[in-house]
Amino acid sequence: MAKKLVYSFGGGAADGTAEMKNLLGGKGANLAEMATLGIPVPAGFTITTEVCTLFYAGNRKYPPELAAQVRKAMARVEAVMGRKFGDPENPLLMSCRSGARRSMPGMMETVLNIGLTSATIPGLIRSTGNPRFVYDAYRRLIMMYSDVVMEKAAGIEPAGRDGIRLILEHEMDRMKRARGVVEDTHLTAEDLEELCGSFKAKVKEVLGAEFPDDAGAQLWGSIGAVFQSWMGKRAIAYRRIEGLPDDWGTAVNVQAMVFGNMGASSATGVAFTRNPATGEKLFYGEWLQNAQGEDVVAGLRTPSPINNATKTPGNEHLKSLEEAEPALYRQLDAIRTRLEKHYRDMQDIEFTIQEGVLWMLQTRTGKRNGTAAVRMAVEMHGERLIDLDEALMRVAPTQLNELLLPMIDPNAEKSAKVLAKGLPAGPGGATGKAVFTADDAEQWAARGEKVILVRAETSPEDVHGMHAAQAILTSKGGMTSHAALVARGWGKCCIVGCGELDIDARGKAMRVGGSVVREGEYITLNGSKGVVYLGRLDLLAVDPDHNEWYKKLMKLADKARRLGVRTNADRPEDARQAVAFGAEGIGLCRTEHMFFDPQRIKAVRQMIMAETAAERRAALAKVLPYQREDFIGIFKAMEGRPVTIRLLDPPLHEFVALTEDQARELAGELNTPVERIRARIAQLHELNPMLGHRGCRLGVAYPEITEMQARAIFEAAAELVRQKQKVAPEVMVPLVGTVGEFRHQERIIRGVAADVMREKSVRFKYLVGTMIEIPRATLVADQIAGDAEFFSFGTNDLTQTAFGYSRDDAGGFLPAYLEQGILSKDPFASLDEEGVGQLIELGIARGRSARPDLKVGICGEHGGDPDSIDFCHRAGMDYVSCSPFRVPLARLAAAQAAVRAAGKAVAKKSVKQSGKKPAGRRSGKKPAGKTAARTAAKKTKKPSKRR
Amino acid sequence: MAKKLVYSFGGGAADGTAEMKNLLGGKGANLAEMATLGIPVPAGFTITTEVCTLFYAGNRKYPPELAAQVRKAMARVEAVMGRKFGDPENPLLMSCRSGARRSMPGMMETVLNIGLTSATIPGLIRSTGNPRFVYDAYRRLIMMYSDVVMEKAAGIEPAGRDGIRLILEHEMDRMKRARGVVEDTHLTAEDLEELCGSFKAKVKEVLGAEFPDDAGAQLWGSIGAVFQSWMGKRAIAYRRIEGLPDDWGTAVNVQAMVFGNMGASSATGVAFTRNPATGEKLFYGEWLQNAQGEDVVAGLRTPSPINNATKTPGNEHLKSLEEAEPALYRQLDAIRTRLEKHYRDMQDIEFTIQEGVLWMLQTRTGKRNGTAAVRMAVEMHGERLIDLDEALMRVAPTQLNELLLPMIDPNAEKSAKVLAKGLPAGPGGATGKAVFTADDAEQWAARGEKVILVRAETSPEDVHGMHAAQAILTSKGGMTSHAALVARGWGKCCIVGCGELDIDARGKAMRVGGSVVREGEYITLNGSKGVVYLGRLDLLAVDPDHNEWYKKLMKLADKARRLGVRTNADRPEDARQAVAFGAEGIGLCRTEHMFFDPQRIKAVRQMIMAETAAERRAALAKVLPYQREDFIGIFKAMEGRPVTIRLLDPPLHEFVALTEDQARELAGELNTPVERIRARIAQLHELNPMLGHRGCRLGVAYPEITEMQARAIFEAAAELVRQKQKVAPEVMVPLVGTVGEFRHQERIIRGVAADVMREKSVRFKYLVGTMIEIPRATLVADQIAGDAEFFSFGTNDLTQTAFGYSRDDAGGFLPAYLEQGILSKDPFASLDEEGVGQLIELGIARGRSARPDLKVGICGEHGGDPDSIDFCHRAGMDYVSCSPFRVPLARLAAAQAAVRAAGKAVAKKSVKQSGKKPAGRRSGKKPAGKTAARTAAKKTKKPSKRR
Repeated sequence: MAKKLVYSFGGGAADGTAEMKNLLGGKGANLAEMATLGIPVPAGFTITTEVCTLFYAGNRKYPPELAAQVRKAMARVEAVMGRKFGDPENPLLMSCRSGARRSMPGMMETVLNIGLTSATIPGLIRSTGNPRFVYDAYRRLIMMYSDVVMEKAAGIEPAGRDGIRLILEHEMDRMKRARGVVEDTHLTAEDLEELCGSFKAKVKEVLGAEFPDDAGAQLWGSIGAVFQSWMGKRAIAYRRIEGLPDDWGTAVNVQAMVFGNMGASSATGVAFTRNPATGEKLFYGEWLQNAQGEDVVAGLRTPSPINNATKTPGNEHLKSLEEAEPALYRQLDAIRTRLEKHYRDMQDIEFTIQEGVLWMLQTRTGKRNGTAAVRMAVEMHGERLIDLDEALMRVAPTQLNELLLPMIDPNAEKSAKVLAKGLPAGPGGATGKAVFTADDAEQWAARGEKVILVRAETSPEDVHGMHAAQAILTSKGGMTSHAALVARGWGKCCIVGCGELDIDARGKAMRVGGSVVREGEYITLNGSKGVVYLGRLDLLAVDPDHNEWYKKLMKLADKARRLGVRTNADRPEDARQAVAFGAEGIGLCRTEHMFFDPQRIKAVRQMIMAETAAERRAALAKVLPYQREDFIGIFKAMEGRPVTIRLLDPPLHEFVALTEDQARELAGELNTPVERIRARIAQLHELNPMLGHRGCRLGVAYPEITEMQARAIFEAAAELVRQKQKVAPEVMVPLVGTVGEFRHQERIIRGVAADVMREKSVRFKYLVGTMIEIPRATLVADQIAGDAEFFSFGTNDLTQTAFGYSRDDAGGFLPAYLEQGILSKDPFASLDEEGVGQLIELGIARGRSARPDLKVGICGEHGGDPDSIDFCHRAGMDYVSCSPFRVPLARLAAAQAAVRAAGKAVAKKSVKQSGKKPAGRRSGKKPAGKTAARTAAKKTKKPSKRR
Repeated sequence: MAKKLVYSFGGGAADGTAEMKNLLGGKGANLAEMATLGIPVPAGFTITTEVCTLFYAGNRKYPPELAAQVRKAMARVEAVMGRKFGDPENPLLMSCRSGARRSMPGMMETVLNIGLTSATIPGLIRSTGNPRFVYDAYRRLIMMYSDVVMEKAAGIEPAGRDGIRLILEHEMDRMKRARGVVEDTHLTAEDLEELCGSFKAKVKEVLGAEFPDDAGAQLWGSIGAVFQSWMGKRAIAYRRIEGLPDDWGTAVNVQAMVFGNMGASSATGVAFTRNPATGEKLFYGEWLQNAQGEDVVAGLRTPSPINNATKTPGNEHLKSLEEAEPALYRQLDAIRTRLEKHYRDMQDIEFTIQEGVLWMLQTRTGKRNGTAAVRMAVEMHGERLIDLDEALMRVAPTQLNELLLPMIDPNAEKSAKVLAKGLPAGPGGATGKAVFTADDAEQWAARGEKVILVRAETSPEDVHGMHAAQAILTSKGGMTSHAALVARGWGKCCIVGCGELDIDARGKAMRVGGSVVREGEYITLNGSKGVVYLGRLDLLAVDPDHNEWYKKLMKLADKARRLGVRTNADRPEDARQAVAFGAEGIGLCRTEHMFFDPQRIKAVRQMIMAETAAERRAALAKVLPYQREDFIGIFKAMEGRPVTIRLLDPPLHEFVALTEDQARELAGELNTPVERIRARIAQLHELNPMLGHRGCRLGVAYPEITEMQARAIFEAAAELVRQKQKVAPEVMVPLVGTVGEFRHQERIIRGVAADVMREKSVRFKYLVGTMIEIPRATLVADQIAGDAEFFSFGTNDLTQTAFGYSRDDAGGFLPAYLEQGILSKDPFASLDEEGVGQLIELGIARGRSARPDLKVGICGEHGGDPDSIDFCHRAGMDYVSCSPFRVPLARLAAAQAAVRAAGKAVAKKSVKQSGKKPAGRRSGKKPAGKTAARTAAKKTKKPSKRR
């Protein structure tokens, strides 16, 4: 039997299911599922994503068996719908849409009304009795098809002229002017018939080809255009941003047309089963009478609310579907409930009412912002719709950032000048300089400006500017417009449909009331309320603890996770902020920032210029009291939680990057010739400072520095003990590559600790451990762990040395590597499991072989990256450490890691017992991979969670 | 039973054996062995090295049981020798000498004539009938003891005054002046008795302590002084240079005195069982009538030849021992033969004749220079004294350097002015500026000057200067003098006993004949002939193929080794030289040196300044013909042997380090503003160039460079094929860390190869492989080997990244690391097996898992280091590659690695079979270690040797 390339659906049955997203795409799989559920879906068929892959692999040719399968599927559609494609008497019109595994809104092409030809138009007019509708459908087909199929897919560059679509729009405008009408709807059937004629002539003239007058030709042209659009510029750019692979391919959904624009008893709408911006459990959507679905999504007309409960001041004057068509609304609301129960998640649905009959065109899991995701997860768990694990997995850890997003200072907001109000499409506050094109947004942002992108409406071509902007403001469109969808996906502040704004993109200004805002002037957005203010208002960090759902979710996460979560903090205020966010300790307290303080830097420089250990000691003695005070502050802020303090790390030349004047001044202070200062600076210069005299290499060469720092730490600890406060210092030796280095430093540290305890007559506990950030350290981790009480993986430097990349210089080639797919992600942002991960696993295994209770954490920037946190869990670490604002994210990511690992363990067990391959428990973000499997396989003991 | 701390020997029996060197030291073990063999040895005992270790561990106290064991051993000596220590009637005198595992000539202390006191002197005078001898012995004891025990071991710093030894020498000079005599021997018994009195008074005056008048006190004082001298400055410095560990400790040999200075029928001498400078199988030595051993070694008197066969023009007027004492000579010669057969190696022996009786004082394996080592190994193998494996192990690979040492151009030598003739103590030629103190030698060498150290005689205090000098020239001393021994150990050019020279160290000049040579003037030494020339003569590389023993040894080595040996060469002349030395291919041909050629650098800079790929291609097209010619030359020189060519590696900024003028000139050439040049240079600047945009990262960013280089290589290959010559190019992609990088470059290279074959209508074979020099590459080596046909480990960069050390900047801390023992050796000189070695083993194992026939080599500088070559063998590599002059060394080291591995395999097998621990087959240079064991254990397949 030939491979099945086409899956049919409709008439209460379907070949596919919702599980088959990889093969049928999200849209196709869900259409099949809805059909099987008995929900009214126009019949159709899905050409699989495999065909897309074969199409690109096979030099843009289809597999030979495709045509026959399409013919057969079309016959089924005809049977269900009672019409025939290309039939002169009772013609069936089809739509042709893309559908990838994951939604890529607006990034690929669609053709509607396929099948209208000189042969079928008369029959359709007869069967509908509506010639105006038919010619309107035909002119839409010509516009879409000539643009999408005949120009774009054919690869015709409209160099030196407008695109065909714009040319045809000008034709239509010309006719409207000639007829003296403003709205499209005022053109008559005859007008439209004439327009179709001139459209076809224009197409021939501009593109040099006849508009196809054959239903089959139109269908295959459209199918081809959709497949082509998978490799279109916009789609590729979107996948780059979202990190989606090129080899997924798209499916093509060919479906019978239903029309929301067949008069007053027709309509179209989109809705969410819950509010995607707040998470509130209310049916939430928009509809437009006598319109096609595209009209709602494009945001050209302001749509009406779907029900009364969700009316807003901006649309309460419009009739809701509930009011206009109560029976249909009830039918839709029942389908909504059914779908949510069936899919156990919030759905984003599209529907069309054709002459009083409801058709569902799409259902998919709805995008939501972080606030909504948190609330839905917690509430659905409360409703027993989903279990605890699933609730935890429902919120992407990065979405929590939105709850921690800055908000406008309420006091500033009270007295600020309101420019306009719109729809609150993306929560949070943002302030920035107004820019009016996506290119400007990108360019201004590239030079460090914070900008807000202001557009009448956005299109997929604007995505780069939307990404670069702090926030997005549009004058048109609703909550489901392009701008709203994209902003929500990114958790970006966004206000849409702000109709009062008169935006002049060419003049780079907007008028509102009597005001003019020009490019570069500050505006401020309250994306949670939908209010635009003139000027620059202060932003405040929110306190997520006012959000009850957030608090519940975090409580659930804390219960589920095994990994501890610490923070990287150098100052008491950061430490306090992190504790408020749930940090259980400090994983990395850098001490060099303290050296740069203006009060201290002189003594530090004196130390560097010293020629003897005695001189160095004298200079360091001046730094000691300051460092001690720093540590007292941090210990107090952490209230007895462990504090890992890293000894001095950067090369000394970083402290003596002096101007000529500063060098002279220093020479004066030290009463030494400036030549000596210059000579010492020259001597400290390094060709590769990253690989130079830094880390513990400083402490070995200048043990006095280690002595002073250890003394400051332990004197601070002693002070707290005397004040009857708890303290848990962990002294971390940086950049260790040999056990000898560690022992050298450890001896000094323990010696000072004993001295301080004796001098101050107190006792305190402390640990001495090391940062593992050099490949060699992972290889001799067993030796090092013989002495070190903890390891903290410094994955920034470990990534630099494992790859041989300088983070400062990688800008020269890393973008090309990501662009060309040589690296799938920036290894400095997300941990390279394949390489660096192996070193970490090796280091942990060897370290624990020598010291089974070795405490292991991570303190590189990866400690705040969800994928990396998942790896840390699998690798058996005890904790991760990240910046204060990432702590909530890390808590959730840690919980998800535990859930994922447990799921895998269950799957593994069931394989062992049944001998079968495990079914994916849920569609995880990525395959488990070799590393995970290896880890899981060899892990015998799970270290308990330490705090 | 208490632990045995003291081992007796003498009277035809001994507690110890020659195998017990670690416990008894070399001297003690061999004295025991000789005693057991029935060779006449003065009785004595050895205090073990363990006592030394316990002494330092126990705060410089002896284990309590030591005293009793010494007492018991002394009683045995007394019984054998028929005299009693401290006995007034028939007193026994003892010597006290150091003896470490390995000889450390002159680095530790000795005390002779112990036991002379006011109580024993009369008895000894009575028993010898020779008061002059007794008082001479006494004054020697006082001089030695006060210096070694009372001053040095007591830690008394002679600040502001001369040392006690010099003070006593002045006393003696004063007496000689007073008596009007020149030679010591002209002082009478009475003179010496008086001198002893004034010596003791002086000792009291200067050191504030009485000279001990008790035999036991003298003995224990001497034992302590020898132990103390293990941690003396000189001994520590020597161990640093030789790489010996501090924890070995020294044994102390306490032995009955015999006297070579008891008149005309007494004598002392040192000899080698074969000539240590040439290897010739002739008994070779020196003797002095009526002298103590120290007199020969110190080189104060020019000694006589031991036999007639080895007389030289310089000493043929002196009577040989063979002539003077034929019977004793025959006895000695028989002992010589016996010892060589017993030890199966050339022995360095010391003997004393006391009143016509021969006593052997020492035998040990004699040091030899490279030339001698090679000849002895080959000849002893021919004599069936040693087997093939042992013959191969007998030559330290670095000793081969001496055979490759430069020699003076014979033509220049003919017409050069001979300054003086001396003894040829170290072969080879050397030219340099004369310096007259060790400190000057070190300082001049540190600033890059080549110097020759000229001294009347050298002492252990001069070692640092001897090390820094190109060669050593002395006016005093024989072939066994300090200078000769040390120079021989290092394979350094050396002439000794050049009596014509009048050396004025203070005035920094020497007079000879009518000439004066002042500091900084050039002299040239022929160390093989012993001739000193005025001025700077040209040196020529020797052709080792004129040395038949070298040729035989290399033939044996080539048969024994499994590892191939290639060379690192960038130019045809280097390639030819390497082939002459036995290179089997080029393991690393760098292409960047070719870029710096003045003819090409302009085009290279133009390429760097280009703004488009087309401009870059145009500039590269100008470089192409040059590169092609380079490769044609190298391919021809290698005559079909494989040539591994590395693509461009350094960051581009290395090519545009321009002065302001050069920048202007370049701007003119390119017809572009100089600001653009400056901007591009600034853009290329990197903070850590070692980790920056280099290696294949260049080829990925600028594929045009790879294209051009591949084309140059393949067009050169095509040219040779057309000329019917063989060619085997191996294109090497540098700095690969991900398989994606390799694939990217491989695609280009293979594409160009196919193009060139088509264009030129020829076919040739080639390989594409990569340099493994980034830790990550070793971790994903299985992926990379899926595509790469060979790996070449670039251990320079791999060491940099594995340690996180920049070779350019490590000078800031590496010396301290070596000094403090944090690293036992410089990882850039000798491969760090513990860390970097693990990465290599991992890389090979994973690489071969994906491609079992993966060709693996090394091309870092470690490829010429014997220890590292041993590792490469154990790690299963196919070849090593090193600089041309290291090729013979590598061939021998590879053979030794094979011998060692086979030995271990045998030992391993016998363990398996017998369950016993293997006895060391020979005392290998170091323990097998974890890595070796692991490798051996898991290696299942030995890749065959490929060429």
